[in-house]
Amino acid sequence: MKLMQKRSRKKGLSPGTLVHIGEKRTETVTVTLFNYSASHCDEHLIRDVNELRLPVDETVTWVDVGGVHKADVLEAFGKHFSLHPLLLEDIANTDQRPKLDDYETYFFVVMKVLTASDHGDILVEQISFVLGRNYVLSFHENGADLFEPVRSRLRGGKGRLRHNGSDYLVYALIDTVVDQYFEVLEMLGERIESLQERVMADPRPETLKDIHALKRQLLFVRRAVWPLREAINNLSRSECPFLHEPTKVFFRDVYDHVVQIVDTIETLREMVSASLDIYLSSVSYRLNSVMRVLTVITTIFMPLSFIAGIYGMNFEHMPELKWAWGYPMALGIMGLVAAAMLLGFRWKKWL
Amino acid sequence: MKLMQKRSRKKGLSPGTLVHIGEKRTETVTVTLFNYSASHCDEHLIRDVNELRLPVDETVTWVDVGGVHKADVLEAFGKHFSLHPLLLEDIANTDQRPKLDDYETYFFVVMKVLTASDHGDILVEQISFVLGRNYVLSFHENGADLFEPVRSRLRGGKGRLRHNGSDYLVYALIDTVVDQYFEVLEMLGERIESLQERVMADPRPETLKDIHALKRQLLFVRRAVWPLREAINNLSRSECPFLHEPTKVFFRDVYDHVVQIVDTIETLREMVSASLDIYLSSVSYRLNSVMRVLTVITTIFMPLSFIAGIYGMNFEHMPELKWAWGYPMALGIMGLVAAAMLLGFRWKKWL
Amino acid sequence: MKLMQKRSRKKGLSPGTLVHIGEKRTETVTVTLFNYSASHCDEHLIRDVNELRLPVDETVTWVDVGGVHKADVLEAFGKHFSLHPLLLEDIANTDQRPKLDDYETYFFVVMKVLTASDHGDILVEQISFVLGRNYVLSFHENGADLFEPVRSRLRGGKGRLRHNGSDYLVYALIDTVVDQYFEVLEMLGERIESLQERVMADPRPETLKDIHALKRQLLFVRRAVWPLREAINNLSRSECPFLHEPTKVFFRDVYDHVVQIVDTIETLREMVSASLDIYLSSVSYRLNSVMRVLTVITTIFMPLSFIAGIYGMNFEHMPELKWAWGYPMALGIMGLVAAAMLLGFRWKKWL
Amino acid sequence: MKLMQKRSRKKGLSPGTLVHIGEKRTETVTVTLFNYSASHCDEHLIRDVNELRLPVDETVTWVDVGGVHKADVLEAFGKHFSLHPLLLEDIANTDQRPKLDDYETYFFVVMKVLTASDHGDILVEQISFVLGRNYVLSFHENGADLFEPVRSRLRGGKGRLRHNGSDYLVYALIDTVVDQYFEVLEMLGERIESLQERVMADPRPETLKDIHALKRQLLFVRRAVWPLREAINNLSRSECPFLHEPTKVFFRDVYDHVVQIVDTIETLREMVSASLDIYLSSVSYRLNSVMRVLTVITTIFMPLSFIAGIYGMNFEHMPELKWAWGYPMALGIMGLVAAAMLLGFRWKKWL
Amino acid sequence: MKLMQKRSRKKGLSPGTLVHIGEKRTETVTVTLFNYSASHCDEHLIRDVNELRLPVDETVTWVDVGGVHKADVLEAFGKHFSLHPLLLEDIANTDQRPKLDDYETYFFVVMKVLTASDHGDILVEQISFVLGRNYVLSFHENGADLFEPVRSRLRGGKGRLRHNGSDYLVYALIDTVVDQYFEVLEMLGERIESLQERVMADPRPETLKDIHALKRQLLFVRRAVWPLREAINNLSRSECPFLHEPTKVFFRDVYDHVVQIVDTIETLREMVSASLDIYLSSVSYRLNSVMRVLTVITTIFMPLSFIAGIYGMNFEHMPELKWAWGYPMALGIMGLVAAAMLLGFRWKKWL
Repeated sequence: MKLMQKRSRKKGLSPGTLVHIGEKRTETVTVTLFNYSASHCDEHLIRDVNELRLPVDETVTWVDVGGVHKADVLEAFGKHFSLHPLLLEDIANTDQRPKLDDYETYFFVVMKVLTASDHGDILVEQISFVLGRNYVLSFHENGADLFEPVRSRLRGGKGRLRHNGSDYLVYALIDTVVDQYFEVLEMLGERIESLQERVMADPRPETLKDIHALKRQLLFVRRAVWPLREAINNLSRSECPFLHEPTKVFFRDVYDHVVQIVDTIETLREMVSASLDIYLSSVSYRLNSVMRVLTVITTIFMPLSFIAGIYGMNFEHMPELKWAWGYPMALGIMGLVAAAMLLGFRWKKWL
Repeated sequence: MKLMQKRSRKKGLSPGTLVHIGEKRTETVTVTLFNYSASHCDEHLIRDVNELRLPVDETVTWVDVGGVHKADVLEAFGKHFSLHPLLLEDIANTDQRPKLDDYETYFFVVMKVLTASDHGDILVEQISFVLGRNYVLSFHENGADLFEPVRSRLRGGKGRLRHNGSDYLVYALIDTVVDQYFEVLEMLGERIESLQERVMADPRPETLKDIHALKRQLLFVRRAVWPLREAINNLSRSECPFLHEPTKVFFRDVYDHVVQIVDTIETLREMVSASLDIYLSSVSYRLNSVMRVLTVITTIFMPLSFIAGIYGMNFEHMPELKWAWGYPMALGIMGLVAAAMLLGFRWKKWL
Repeated sequence: MKLMQKRSRKKGLSPGTLVHIGEKRTETVTVTLFNYSASHCDEHLIRDVNELRLPVDETVTWVDVGGVHKADVLEAFGKHFSLHPLLLEDIANTDQRPKLDDYETYFFVVMKVLTASDHGDILVEQISFVLGRNYVLSFHENGADLFEPVRSRLRGGKGRLRHNGSDYLVYALIDTVVDQYFEVLEMLGERIESLQERVMADPRPETLKDIHALKRQLLFVRRAVWPLREAINNLSRSECPFLHEPTKVFFRDVYDHVVQIVDTIETLREMVSASLDIYLSSVSYRLNSVMRVLTVITTIFMPLSFIAGIYGMNFEHMPELKWAWGYPMALGIMGLVAAAMLLGFRWKKWL
Repeated sequence: MKLMQKRSRKKGLSPGTLVHIGEKRTETVTVTLFNYSASHCDEHLIRDVNELRLPVDETVTWVDVGGVHKADVLEAFGKHFSLHPLLLEDIANTDQRPKLDDYETYFFVVMKVLTASDHGDILVEQISFVLGRNYVLSFHENGADLFEPVRSRLRGGKGRLRHNGSDYLVYALIDTVVDQYFEVLEMLGERIESLQERVMADPRPETLKDIHALKRQLLFVRRAVWPLREAINNLSRSECPFLHEPTKVFFRDVYDHVVQIVDTIETLREMVSASLDIYLSSVSYRLNSVMRVLTVITTIFMPLSFIAGIYGMNFEHMPELKWAWGYPMALGIMGLVAAAMLLGFRWKKWL
Repeated sequence: MKLMQKRSRKKGLSPGTLVHIGEKRTETVTVTLFNYSASHCDEHLIRDVNELRLPVDETVTWVDVGGVHKADVLEAFGKHFSLHPLLLEDIANTDQRPKLDDYETYFFVVMKVLTASDHGDILVEQISFVLGRNYVLSFHENGADLFEPVRSRLRGGKGRLRHNGSDYLVYALIDTVVDQYFEVLEMLGERIESLQERVMADPRPETLKDIHALKRQLLFVRRAVWPLREAINNLSRSECPFLHEPTKVFFRDVYDHVVQIVDTIETLREMVSASLDIYLSSVSYRLNSVMRVLTVITTIFMPLSFIAGIYGMNFEHMPELKWAWGYPMALGIMGLVAAAMLLGFRWKKWL
């Protein structure tokens, strides 16, 4: 969950130069190819990217690339699919903002994959899709493998997936990524609810750190999801010939999900802000209550000590000192004063 | 009033798979059918959804379904009315954002039914409408029954309802749901006014919890109503042939109501925020006043005890100690000092 | 200045049912009719609404109705002028948001009349206008009578009023209502300026209540004026045949006034917020200063009492106690310590 | 720098009635006429407005009117130039919001002239321009004389002014007014920077008043400049025949200046807000530090006085009292306790 | 990082008068000329601006001017390239807001160059580009030299630069300036992260100054970048003939970068605000904890001193004083009371 990736390595280079920006997760780059139609589904592991051949018929080809840190692999894709150099640069630079670029013969979509780690952290990975007439390329950073369910559906051949074109495949992949966001939000939602209980029951300085950590995570998720709204909206309204009308209904559904996620993020943000308010005012209330009680105790002893002080004076002519009942009387007065003050403070609800 | 429903059950499933998301309220699913025209009104309880038949003439049919947790029931509707699988999925998933989808041969509207419980809670239920040329389907979670007045009006046959088409029926149903929002707002408004009085009269930590509970409820209502604004606006401007011009006037009226509700929510939110401000500053004012009074008491006794301390010293040569009037004089000085300080503090308005 | 009117009475009723929502101000309903052209001006008090006749020639008729709580009166108007049932419902329901509805053969405008009462309260009344080709209907709650100046101008026949159509009459009426807003804002502005002085000079808990009362009143005025902006803008841009081009210039002038009022409200709101800030910080500053002075006093007596305590000890071998100058010396040391501390605290500006 | 001008004098009057709203600055009204073309420039002081004649040829005439409080002067202009009565009313009412009105045969522009007084106040004056095909009328309140440089340029005949039409003259006048805003902002900017230094070095209650005075002045300037943005933008995009394309470039330049001024105002507002934050937290930090030091002193004397109290007890059997070294021992213990506490508090950085 | 440049020097001057506003950085003005096509690249240092000749063929000429404080140099350019006087004025006035002006035969772009100095300051310089059909003029303040990499690429002849027109050259220059913003943001990001750690570990008044300095720097960067968004968007959508379609893809890429920078600035601003919150609440928590501990100590000694005070009274009849075990008993009671209070306070977590 880093704020920014170092871009300084790119300084002064010609645009379109492929420099990987981000953390390298694995050394190797895995390239998997699916070729399918309603009637068949072939699956290959590509070893040499230059061997890649795109069938010319009406079948759909999906090439999934895990690892974007090798310039030569990206360049091979660029040559084979005639991709724009800026597109390749955006794939290699994992510090992109989610977006949709329309390159006329293909669409380019950049998204963030969010995964909730076991420790409550949010891991982020960039995924880029190139959607052509009869192919889909997906490039990710080789972290979490989200697409296994899609692959099973392709292999199984049930459902709509095998009967539709490349646009529906891209929809299925994007939908999988967006569904993952709900999981992250559920995790955050649970943490916020547990935070709210803790803030009421036992506010501590560490709670403040938790509040701000959650705030930052929400900011982070919002940055990943917010620009997606517009990107998917544009996709669902595009006039492109290989985006079929029936698939656009599905993109509108994904759009609805993204809008709902943005909405939920805003609600969670307001809940975290409310927690901060409650935290601050209950910390202050507690501290003040303690001070009040302590000061009440001090205040009660002031007149008592004063009375003791009076009878500790050494005047020769102090008649009370010679009285047989002087001492009990003094103790009695002290007791009365203390009782009166206690009652008074309790009546005023100061104690 | 849960923030989010668990969606994890859907993870990895093909889109359009019918998985109920939400709480199951009843085991059974109740299906009621009304068929009416200006001259007649039939009412049936449907036992087997597959027996459902839609008349082909110009009468209007309203099928009301209570319970959305049974996939087979929804699938039967989907087949019979050729509903899009995503629409069925949205009906089953009760964690939808209010919206309007235009599927060309029918409209799909999702709304939230809000009910104020006796304990001041807000119960929420999802209701979905499918508006076709000569039919209306309504799917709800089988909680509160709102539509009895509409049914009576249908049976009675008076008013506009029986003389108009399916668009007017959907209007009547949506209007009923929106009228319910006013009731919830009235309840919240009353609670906020009582809160404001309490905040002035007797601010306590529990009041803070109430303030934040109200804030959250308002957030919740806003989330349910805000997206409806756009949905109903689109409905009232739609160019669809089975939405008649005279009915659109009624939809614009509902739109006005929704706008007014949104407005009122904003006002209530500002009132709750003001309550929070007043709460915080009056709590702090009270605590500080208490501390000030206590400290004034302590401060008054300091010089008195000091004087007593002086005449408690054991010097052999302290002439005052031998004076006959030494003791009364000491007491007198103490009294004067105390009176001077009391007057001074009162004059400065510190007491 | 109530937040919401009770709408519960309408629950379950068919739309268009005339139920009065709001307070009834008078029992009777007063209906006045003006019929005028450049050359004449007749004035009648209508006793039976059913007798009302609209002249068919090019004269302008203005019917002013005071009191909207009688359903039969409204229904008679509805029948006579063929008004839409929803329009009548909106007239009877005094909890409307200001708006403009275009019913093609007539316009419907809802506004709020604001009046500053002598006690600084803001009284609100709803006024509705129906603007037809050659007639204007105005419905109000029979509270304050604003339109006397317009009536005099009609009777007098000077100025533009008698030479123009119904559109100019509606302009004159709306302009009168909007001018009233300036008065309310002047009253609020004066109260805010006096508040700002009080907040500086003598901040007290009651001031806080005043601040929040003003905040709420401004919220209230904003709710009444804000939606009017759009309504009057639409009116001034309408393409309707009986809204003449020269009159639109006047509507744009009213629009400018409304925009200025909205602007002034925002400024007043910021001033009230600033007052709250100043109030809070000056209350806190005062309380803290008091505490500081009190604590300084306590702190000065601590070492003095300690010295007295030392010479109050009963050790047999305390040479100072036997010295002839012991007592004056002790007092002298005390005086020096006290003076040193006083100077030190004053030097540090703590006193 | 008054928030609102009294408008009550206009209550109940017919629209277009000329009532001066604002302060009268001078008794007399000064009317100056310039008539110029590329080849000549005549200058007259007009004594009787009714004598004013507008040349029919292609020369440009500029009539500058100082003083808007005389209804007859304005009416004479209205008759001579066929100005709309509402326009005249807007000139007389100096409480206008800046705006552009397009009256087809002429444009009407209202602006505010801001001048920084020597005491740091901001003086405001209203200026209105009427831009016709071959004439410009300017009406101001006869306060500061801004236009002397424009007059010199006209007389001198150098530069573009004499070679262009009335549109360029209006541009030159508006540009002069806008340039004045920069000066006011520079003055405010300097005051804010000096405020920021004071807030750090020596925060006092008076600083708070300064902060809020600056806040209010910025609010005031923003109200004067913000609406101008749209007005000048509309002017620079107008399709009017006597606004020549080359002059529009100049209006766009003024527009850029206004946008920059709005921008700078926002920045200054954020700086003032930051000053408030720093003020509040440094006041609170200072007060708390003082209290902490005072309380540390009190706390150190508590155990010392207690020890003295112990040896002040009058028990018969207290062996220490008879020891020869009892007294020095007691003093020594006290010294040790005091030193230990001082070191401890210093180590904890409490002192 | 000054808020505003002094503009007062321009007061009263005719628009288009060339007055340098800003700091003069060097005395001399350096003018460099590049003329290139795919096949050649000539480089000259121009000594006399009047000797400048623009080739009429299809080669691209780039004239880079370092230093904008000499009016004669700018005027020579103005004459030679027929530049609009307002454009020259904008070049000389270094207090411009970033913008794009379309002068039909050329575009004018103003930007800010931001450089992070070694001390964490942000240096700002204005750069202006004039983009003509076959030439690019760049004017900067002769501070940091950013364009060396572009020059090397031109000389080297590799990459796209030499094969494209003037539009691509301007893209390359703008891209270089925008890349620099990322570096400034990285510097700020690092400083904010180190600030956040310091705020948690050791909050001090100086930290507050750092927070506000960072806030101001972010405000400053935002002012420089925000208007660029719209400028570059307009450039990438322009219909101008010498902006080729393939180059617009590159401008859209720069636009994406600017949007991402704006996004990052907002995130950094929220992080700084969070730091302020944490700072304020941890300072207050610390101060309150200290006070609580001190007050607890005082409170514990109050009853002990009181007991000592009782047995310091001089009553003749106080039996305890004569008991052999009186003194140890008194000490024992004191010990018990102290222990009880300590345990009690610890149990309540007050200590």
